[in-house]
Amino acid sequence: MALLPLITQAQKDSILINHIYNEALSNGKCHEHLRSLCKDIGPRLSGSQAADDAILWGKEIMEGLGADTVYLQDVQVPHWVRGDEEKASCEINGLTKAIHICALGGSIGTSGNLSAEVIQVKRLEDLEKLGREKIEGKIVLFNRALDPVLINTGAAYGGAYDQRSSGASEASKYGAVGVLIRSLTHALDTKPHTGSMRYIDGVNPIPAAAISTVDANALGQAFKDNSVVKVTINLNCQLLPKKMQANVIAEITGSQFPNEYIVVGGHLDSWDIGEGAHDDGAGIVHSIEVLHLFKALNIRPKHTIRVVLYINEENGNNGGKTYARIAKEKGEKHVAALESDMGGFVPRGFSMEAKDDQVEIIRSWEPLFSAYNIHLFRRGWSGVDIRPLKNGETALVGLVPDNQRYFDFHHSANDVFENVHKRELELGSATVASLIYLLDQHF
Amino acid sequence: MALLPLITQAQKDSILINHIYNEALSNGKCHEHLRSLCKDIGPRLSGSQAADDAILWGKEIMEGLGADTVYLQDVQVPHWVRGDEEKASCEINGLTKAIHICALGGSIGTSGNLSAEVIQVKRLEDLEKLGREKIEGKIVLFNRALDPVLINTGAAYGGAYDQRSSGASEASKYGAVGVLIRSLTHALDTKPHTGSMRYIDGVNPIPAAAISTVDANALGQAFKDNSVVKVTINLNCQLLPKKMQANVIAEITGSQFPNEYIVVGGHLDSWDIGEGAHDDGAGIVHSIEVLHLFKALNIRPKHTIRVVLYINEENGNNGGKTYARIAKEKGEKHVAALESDMGGFVPRGFSMEAKDDQVEIIRSWEPLFSAYNIHLFRRGWSGVDIRPLKNGETALVGLVPDNQRYFDFHHSANDVFENVHKRELELGSATVASLIYLLDQHF
Repeated sequence: MALLPLITQAQKDSILINHIYNEALSNGKCHEHLRSLCKDIGPRLSGSQAADDAILWGKEIMEGLGADTVYLQDVQVPHWVRGDEEKASCEINGLTKAIHICALGGSIGTSGNLSAEVIQVKRLEDLEKLGREKIEGKIVLFNRALDPVLINTGAAYGGAYDQRSSGASEASKYGAVGVLIRSLTHALDTKPHTGSMRYIDGVNPIPAAAISTVDANALGQAFKDNSVVKVTINLNCQLLPKKMQANVIAEITGSQFPNEYIVVGGHLDSWDIGEGAHDDGAGIVHSIEVLHLFKALNIRPKHTIRVVLYINEENGNNGGKTYARIAKEKGEKHVAALESDMGGFVPRGFSMEAKDDQVEIIRSWEPLFSAYNIHLFRRGWSGVDIRPLKNGETALVGLVPDNQRYFDFHHSANDVFENVHKRELELGSATVASLIYLLDQHF
Repeated sequence: MALLPLITQAQKDSILINHIYNEALSNGKCHEHLRSLCKDIGPRLSGSQAADDAILWGKEIMEGLGADTVYLQDVQVPHWVRGDEEKASCEINGLTKAIHICALGGSIGTSGNLSAEVIQVKRLEDLEKLGREKIEGKIVLFNRALDPVLINTGAAYGGAYDQRSSGASEASKYGAVGVLIRSLTHALDTKPHTGSMRYIDGVNPIPAAAISTVDANALGQAFKDNSVVKVTINLNCQLLPKKMQANVIAEITGSQFPNEYIVVGGHLDSWDIGEGAHDDGAGIVHSIEVLHLFKALNIRPKHTIRVVLYINEENGNNGGKTYARIAKEKGEKHVAALESDMGGFVPRGFSMEAKDDQVEIIRSWEPLFSAYNIHLFRRGWSGVDIRPLKNGETALVGLVPDNQRYFDFHHSANDVFENVHKRELELGSATVASLIYLLDQHF
């Protein structure tokens, strides 16, 4: 008679995942790591001294956690700087008042004050309807709000994103002298939300800034009242020569398949306002916590686990592209990659870009996660930094935290450590580490 | 050949629920109602003038929303008052500093300063081990923290609750002169969290106060260092004669079963510190929003829908008990009751006390809710106010919002309007209204 194993693999997995959650919630280091990243380093846009500091910070933290090896991978990054304090005011019916703006990343400056009448549009297509006659010499205000009825706030953001990414180039074609973009957030406040934009080749670049939702509503009301609106903006941003910075990579060497890799990562760079706490300090400390949890629980992975702190997600994605290019050049086999870049909120589940059989395996783990209220196991976008690894073989997975609050903070001065909840962050770390454990065991 | 219906009931339900969510997220009134309740009325402990004001507020709001009838149901409530400002200090190794405390609801006052040496315990059982010799004449500090590894913070609260509810009576048996209870929260801050306590008949009542977690940790450290700790507390609270207040009840008369009732409610009273925003302003505005959403979408229920704003949940539950007693006396048939009293956070699902077939029907609606990330359909506790309706026939359901943040705010000065997220509150309203719609259609 054959002896039955004392416990099944599913029971073993269940017990280990319970240990991971317990450790993360009772002795987790991610909250303190986030405090340090946000307060000791602070905002860390690619090219900045603070981004250099963050790279060393990440290297030292991961060495301290006992990774088998930690190294830097050179990445060429753009170096855009905001310059001195930005200022803007509006004049409505002869009354002047300050408005809250910030340059979009990549924008040119204004070379002193730029004053012009404002024309409001809701959609890029409105520009063609208005034509050069009505737009030339004016500042275009793109004032389409995020759609409130979309449950997924990421979809609402995506639906308004073209204003920020393409507004300047499209308005420039009709002779506009600048653009203001309604901040891409549901929150109604006076904090402008920056983010990347780019100039299409061949169009005359014009300054582009985000305007707070409160100010955008005030201007919108002025247009409803048929008032003439004039704004004066002063932006001192500029693009400096490119710099060499780095991805930070730590490894726990695999015991059975040392040359097969499972990546877990987020991005180390952030915008230059706020502290990059949710975007993407949370993803950084979620990923680093895998090292802590694996070490604390003596989990020895079969595959080599690589924690990758990517540089330059916000304005170029050169960290993710460089990592994938070098992995391909070296012929490295990547089994799976998991990215956390949607904030430090309570985790809900996973979004997968993977083969049918991989999706099926990951979905089979749903019962292991139900005690932790992890319920989303859907196909969908994984993440900007791991996406360049997509090759039809590597399973790409994004952590999906609850996203109702994410765009309140995203790319704004509100994205600070104090706005990340300790337990929610710890639950995210445990969820990430548990999936990495399962991928290592079963892939 | 029989004609197929143009759309199935499930499709009709799906469309209607989509309308409910869209309306709540684009034209919802719950956030403004909550602002008004928190800011125009404020804290509203049973017996207070503010609770009287809140009763009128609720009546007027629901009349304005076009309920068929709105009326008050008399409820006798206790009238405990906190009195003037509370003060406390501790003396450790001769150094005196202020500590943050607040009387527990129901506590007696101190009649001037109460100064005594402190002895720390973690569990009620520790009292017996220490014995009268070590406890007599001292203030007992109950300093057991909430268990961080429990995913459900309500379970962690429940696991620490006996300190607050029974600590004073149990310590008094051994001659203690007062008790300090570690605030029942995971949050580490200087805000004490109040809540109800009661004296067992026959024991000598002694003053009972909550102490902030930061101060509780500082005292805990002093005990680790073998320091002698003395505290001085001054509480001016007292119990006044009972008062008559009221539940506020609004009805939409059922078109087919006007004498069969579906209740949706929360509690109108709150503790006297903070604004009762999550506890339970959120439940109040969730419930009121059913009126708005049904009217806006022209939903005419088959059964009579009763929105009940219960009084006196916090320190007596006389609102819930009175409602159930009168319903029984009148022989009213209650088909179902839904309570929202776990905060205004993003909704996760429902907790049911119901018959097997009822649970099965409600679980069959899960696909209708998946687009809204509602995934919990579990058996469990429904709510303090509707529980007295339990009779083996009426389906009792509690709304389950995410609870990671709830006890950060609960019963403390942090429970204010600003800490409730507009979209999360609106999603809660839509979830409540959708379930009421389905219960009405299918029960």
